[in-house]
Amino acid sequence: MATIGATLASVRPGEVVIDLPYRSDLTQQHGFLHAGVVTAVVDSACGYAALTLMPPGAAVLSVEFKVNLLAPARGAGFRAQGRVERAGRTLTVCTGELRVVDSDTVIALMQATMMAVEGRDGRRD
Amino acid sequence: MATIGATLASVRPGEVVIDLPYRSDLTQQHGFLHAGVVTAVVDSACGYAALTLMPPGAAVLSVEFKVNLLAPARGAGFRAQGRVERAGRTLTVCTGELRVVDSDTVIALMQATMMAVEGRDGRRD
Amino acid sequence: MATIGATLASVRPGEVVIDLPYRSDLTQQHGFLHAGVVTAVVDSACGYAALTLMPPGAAVLSVEFKVNLLAPARGAGFRAQGRVERAGRTLTVCTGELRVVDSDTVIALMQATMMAVEGRDGRRD
Amino acid sequence: MATIGATLASVRPGEVVIDLPYRSDLTQQHGFLHAGVVTAVVDSACGYAALTLMPPGAAVLSVEFKVNLLAPARGAGFRAQGRVERAGRTLTVCTGELRVVDSDTVIALMQATMMAVEGRDGRRD
Repeated sequence: MATIGATLASVRPGEVVIDLPYRSDLTQQHGFLHAGVVTAVVDSACGYAALTLMPPGAAVLSVEFKVNLLAPARGAGFRAQGRVERAGRTLTVCTGELRVVDSDTVIALMQATMMAVEGRDGRRD
Repeated sequence: MATIGATLASVRPGEVVIDLPYRSDLTQQHGFLHAGVVTAVVDSACGYAALTLMPPGAAVLSVEFKVNLLAPARGAGFRAQGRVERAGRTLTVCTGELRVVDSDTVIALMQATMMAVEGRDGRRD
Repeated sequence: MATIGATLASVRPGEVVIDLPYRSDLTQQHGFLHAGVVTAVVDSACGYAALTLMPPGAAVLSVEFKVNLLAPARGAGFRAQGRVERAGRTLTVCTGELRVVDSDTVIALMQATMMAVEGRDGRRD
Repeated sequence: MATIGATLASVRPGEVVIDLPYRSDLTQQHGFLHAGVVTAVVDSACGYAALTLMPPGAAVLSVEFKVNLLAPARGAGFRAQGRVERAGRTLTVCTGELRVVDSDTVIALMQATMMAVEGRDGRRD
């Protein structure tokens, strides 16, 4: 997240907000944020939100996510929110969104499954 | 795609292959390719694959995609493939995948909906 | 919907609620509502919600949906809600959920894309 | 599956085929198979495919699935196929499809996550 200039705006149990200022090098040819960047930020918000409800020492992996792109990601700044919809022992289901800060336009919606893994080596199931 | 060092490896009607060499600045803390980069490359392969079957002058927009992350994106190089499963007048459904070049391990699977738009300004529906 | 005993509980612009009483013939071996029935009800709620914001004479088609199953669908009755997140000229993005009426437990979450089609013959793009 | 007249056509490690003859009571108003029935059959094919690679005594749960509806489900008979794309200790990723038997038209594509659970009580994570 640091690479793209994103910062944690708020962390509460089951809910995380990440801010992303506009940067021209994150956009595609039309000046819109690239779908990969949109996904990365919302996925991170969902992953951190899941992590807030996992046991200490757990790491989180994205199992899968589904993204609907609703509007062009154009604006001076963006805000991603991730929310835990259901926290299980192994799997956590989250929803997330990315909004334009100025206009509050929703750019993207995510529905994702996160997995708690022991340790921090990021190994997959 | 140029920003992340990706290159078109092959373009055929309904099928596009994109190569992505490893670059340390595209990885997260464990040396794996970030989920956003994985998504961006496979989404691009799917989008270009859809575009090959669209009328001249059309542009393509990602309506939505679903990604399953199957294995850590670790390797010297990656290859994304996008395939058109059904080309409609307005909507095109694609499947895509990302593999590690060395081991042929599948890292990610995508199922996506693309939309043809008139003109090239990237406006959304 | 009539086949499975579902009834429209409320219809507002962009939001539709459908009630589904428990029926043993809709369950799988463990007495839970089958995933196909869960999907059908939430898909219908999303489709009707989309239709409320489409021009008169339009019909609605489900382009795609993504469902997370969060808890076993067990209870005396179920309530599905579909909401429009973004209504476009051609495509409408909805979110939906199914809850157990007694406990308010969320059984399933849906994120779906609906398409407006002219006429009522259900032809696809 | 018995309720809707579906039968197992073939079971191999990691791949299951289910046949579904046309029945008028499974259709919606236009004589097409309902999206819920389409989903149920492909979900079952994916679930059984996952089960073939799980340890003895394990049961399988659908964690989530994503379905693209490509063409109207109209025909004298339908064939669903589920394939394991990656079998993990806990999670198995499958792809599936439903075809019209006569024309080989693909009606639906699924990408799904299945979970192995101990015992057979269908409890969720």
